[in-house]
Amino acid sequence: MNQPAHVALGLDFGTESVRALLTDLNGNELASAVVPYEHGQITETLPGTDEKLPADFAFQHPSDWIEASAQAVRDAVAAAGLTGDEIIGIGVDFTSCTMLPALSDGTPLCLVPQWAAEKFAWPKLWKHHGAKTQTEKINELARARNEPWLARYGGIIGLEWFFPKMLETLEEAPAVYEATEVWLEAGDWYVWQLVDSPADKLPRSTCQAGYKGMWHSHDGFPSREFFAALHPKLENVVAEKMPGQFLAPGEAAGTLCASIAEKFGLPAGIPVSAATIDAHAGVPGAGAAGAGTLVMVMGTSSCHMLNADAEQNVPGVAGIVEGGILPGFFGYETGQAAVGDAFDWLRRTTGHDNFDQLTAQAATMPPGAEGVLCMDWFNGCRTPLMDGGLRGAFVGLTMNHGAGHMYRALMEGSAFGVRWIVDLLRENGVPVTCIVATGGLPHHNPLLVQIYADVLGLPITVHPSKQGPALGAAILGVLAADTDRKHFATTADAIAAMAGPRADDPSRAAKIVEPEADAQAAYENIYQRYRKLADVLVAENL
Amino acid sequence: MNQPAHVALGLDFGTESVRALLTDLNGNELASAVVPYEHGQITETLPGTDEKLPADFAFQHPSDWIEASAQAVRDAVAAAGLTGDEIIGIGVDFTSCTMLPALSDGTPLCLVPQWAAEKFAWPKLWKHHGAKTQTEKINELARARNEPWLARYGGIIGLEWFFPKMLETLEEAPAVYEATEVWLEAGDWYVWQLVDSPADKLPRSTCQAGYKGMWHSHDGFPSREFFAALHPKLENVVAEKMPGQFLAPGEAAGTLCASIAEKFGLPAGIPVSAATIDAHAGVPGAGAAGAGTLVMVMGTSSCHMLNADAEQNVPGVAGIVEGGILPGFFGYETGQAAVGDAFDWLRRTTGHDNFDQLTAQAATMPPGAEGVLCMDWFNGCRTPLMDGGLRGAFVGLTMNHGAGHMYRALMEGSAFGVRWIVDLLRENGVPVTCIVATGGLPHHNPLLVQIYADVLGLPITVHPSKQGPALGAAILGVLAADTDRKHFATTADAIAAMAGPRADDPSRAAKIVEPEADAQAAYENIYQRYRKLADVLVAENL
Repeated sequence: MNQPAHVALGLDFGTESVRALLTDLNGNELASAVVPYEHGQITETLPGTDEKLPADFAFQHPSDWIEASAQAVRDAVAAAGLTGDEIIGIGVDFTSCTMLPALSDGTPLCLVPQWAAEKFAWPKLWKHHGAKTQTEKINELARARNEPWLARYGGIIGLEWFFPKMLETLEEAPAVYEATEVWLEAGDWYVWQLVDSPADKLPRSTCQAGYKGMWHSHDGFPSREFFAALHPKLENVVAEKMPGQFLAPGEAAGTLCASIAEKFGLPAGIPVSAATIDAHAGVPGAGAAGAGTLVMVMGTSSCHMLNADAEQNVPGVAGIVEGGILPGFFGYETGQAAVGDAFDWLRRTTGHDNFDQLTAQAATMPPGAEGVLCMDWFNGCRTPLMDGGLRGAFVGLTMNHGAGHMYRALMEGSAFGVRWIVDLLRENGVPVTCIVATGGLPHHNPLLVQIYADVLGLPITVHPSKQGPALGAAILGVLAADTDRKHFATTADAIAAMAGPRADDPSRAAKIVEPEADAQAAYENIYQRYRKLADVLVAENL
Repeated sequence: MNQPAHVALGLDFGTESVRALLTDLNGNELASAVVPYEHGQITETLPGTDEKLPADFAFQHPSDWIEASAQAVRDAVAAAGLTGDEIIGIGVDFTSCTMLPALSDGTPLCLVPQWAAEKFAWPKLWKHHGAKTQTEKINELARARNEPWLARYGGIIGLEWFFPKMLETLEEAPAVYEATEVWLEAGDWYVWQLVDSPADKLPRSTCQAGYKGMWHSHDGFPSREFFAALHPKLENVVAEKMPGQFLAPGEAAGTLCASIAEKFGLPAGIPVSAATIDAHAGVPGAGAAGAGTLVMVMGTSSCHMLNADAEQNVPGVAGIVEGGILPGFFGYETGQAAVGDAFDWLRRTTGHDNFDQLTAQAATMPPGAEGVLCMDWFNGCRTPLMDGGLRGAFVGLTMNHGAGHMYRALMEGSAFGVRWIVDLLRENGVPVTCIVATGGLPHHNPLLVQIYADVLGLPITVHPSKQGPALGAAILGVLAADTDRKHFATTADAIAAMAGPRADDPSRAAKIVEPEADAQAAYENIYQRYRKLADVLVAENL
């Protein structure tokens, strides 16, 4: 096989390891390599000390990101039989909000000997849950001040986000806060190391800033007044400790610097894209190029992402960010808090070892599970009600029903949840024209996908998306490199060529599940009943 | 042991067999005997023919009642070592509404050779469900005419009741209807045979007429106008085909006639009480003598019976009948359609072979099942909403809950259902001061009884009641005989002596379960939540 002349490199940073993916400009995989982080998740003991960490703490080691990714790149390039000169662009997706304090030369505070034994100097992993009281403080203050940005996040800021984690450090370890010159996302820190820019040009991802840092393309971060009211020390935090420039994923952050290039075994000067959040890389990775395609990443919970041409204030949407997913679009994010998790709960609770019998029973029932209706709020409601205190329910039960009815009702409830989100977007002027399903769940549960298609009244494309976010990152690398449109005339062309479904390649043969007319019609009334149930559960606090 | 000078005989007619119980006047069992009916339940083929019966048909053979009870009496008397002369009174309880067409000399139509091969000439057992369209017709007409008696039955007449079964025969086999000279309950027919009175004195039980025949002590049966509107042939059915006198259970229907006395091996002339419904015999059988004691017969479903001094129109009560349970009281009947049945449904649906694990989990939880709330309408709601179309529900579910939570919530929902009934009675001026629990369930499920006590805020007496209704029937026999108050000064004295709890006799040591103050207080708010859930499920048709 001839080596392709032009190759893209995608780097996908997970919780335990990093994946390097090399593809040609048709998205064909040339090689990939996964390298675990030497320190993994740091949840028990602080490195180099005997200090036990609290139960809800989770850190990572910044050297792991550089060393593991260097090894993964070298492994992948070798496996593909490339020299490295073929690589035209590099894209990076990262967990978020994983964040750290650093000096203005980029040194992570935890690697400064003076701070190495101080736990709050270490990067906090996305799942670090130490900032509960700080999160409440931020939400209360924002509500009290009626902050305009609150509406973009459905009225609530998450425990895992950027400023709760920063405020936690300020309150718990004020000296660390004082010593910090730059607060930033780990994905941004990584790209900064690759391109080695001065601190005032450090490339901050609009995706991470927008979805996890309350940043807006016109309004920036929350106001000085807000920060001053939150904590006196925070008044000028943005001006003094958050330098940088904002770039959308797919925009060039700079080019690979000499020292990192040497580590990676690549030539210096390769364009590098601004970072993106791992889930959001799944949008180009699933071949979703334009406005109106809702990409559902379905697993234990579900995350839905959608690009649109305009910004609309949609109540209950988890985040709306200009350039948040791809340059030139407004990125909308919505979510469901319990999907695969809830199915597994039902399986356990009804005493089944696997889903075989439940699926066989559910598959033979007509729409509506013979009268059983489920509210899928077993872990609260993310979109549209943004209320973690809401609870799941089953109604319509008789002694003629069994666990199979409850399972079908739960799948239908999950589909009704998405229907509600799609209706909400459309009613607020955000078009939704296509649905793409990725993640593990749609591949293992064809009945679920059929129910979703029937409830939504739309065909659902189940995207093979084997490489997940890594392919999306590689595409972003190409976009960052291809500023003169030498390879692709448009962003959409690049995404279609590299990740679109393709009938001639079994690994990219997307399965399209069409709605069945009778079932679709039957679900109209049942969906109204679901909405009525949602209304009364909320109104009556049941 | 010396033979007692005075003995009572109770005859308890069930679906498959009859039980004869002999006790002394302290309620001590001397002997009992159970004899199955030769023809059992007749559900497959009409006796003496090849005719297959429809699926929802169920008959009995009237000769079985006489022959099986004769054998049971002989067996019991022999086992007790009595002569028969000691028996001072006979009481009879019977399934209801089990009914038949007869000639005016008492001959069941099915025993007249000309009609023996006609299925509609046979006694319809209580569970015969052939009269669905006729039941709807009666209910629709009663509502349309705003019949005053409808309110006494919670606004709805049951499928198993007397006039639906009669109308079914008129519509399906008009010649049988024409040939019938007397329509009557099987319990009344049996007592009539024992006392051999002329047809115009045949003893009709106020209990059976009142609870199953829309009869009222002042108003009688529904009006001629109602019957004429229902079917032209029915206009004069009461006057022409329903002769007899109305007697409360415990009132004497007459004395044992010579021919039956000979069959039974007893002397003629023993007073016989008017019949009662089997469940209602459980009230004296559980030692409940006076006004204000609610007797819960708890099994797959629950039936609650209560005597009061006055008639109040309580919306949703299943039946209010003067002399319906005991002479001199107004008998109230309420019910829950799914109790043990629903528990068993939950056990099956959650994959358990028995209740051990579920009970162990439920027992360790505080009131409220950690937020899970259950509506116990898995078989519709009998009292107070009288709507078989209502459905069960669980709300408040999260992924931290398991089957044990659902089981506890179901038991609590069942208790809340009784609390609603008790509140309703009290709000409408019917005192409820004591609770007695009988039937299989309270003996096997002490956690359930504790939850009931805590929710009701009343001690619950779990009555041993081993002989069930048969002891109640024996007491009614004594009441019928003791008109000169030779043995007992009052009805209450008789019941207390023969069935009241007695510490000196382990078989009659009633267990009293007291409410726990903390749990009782905790249940107040949870009960309000249950009522709110009931309201919205009904209002929103969920």
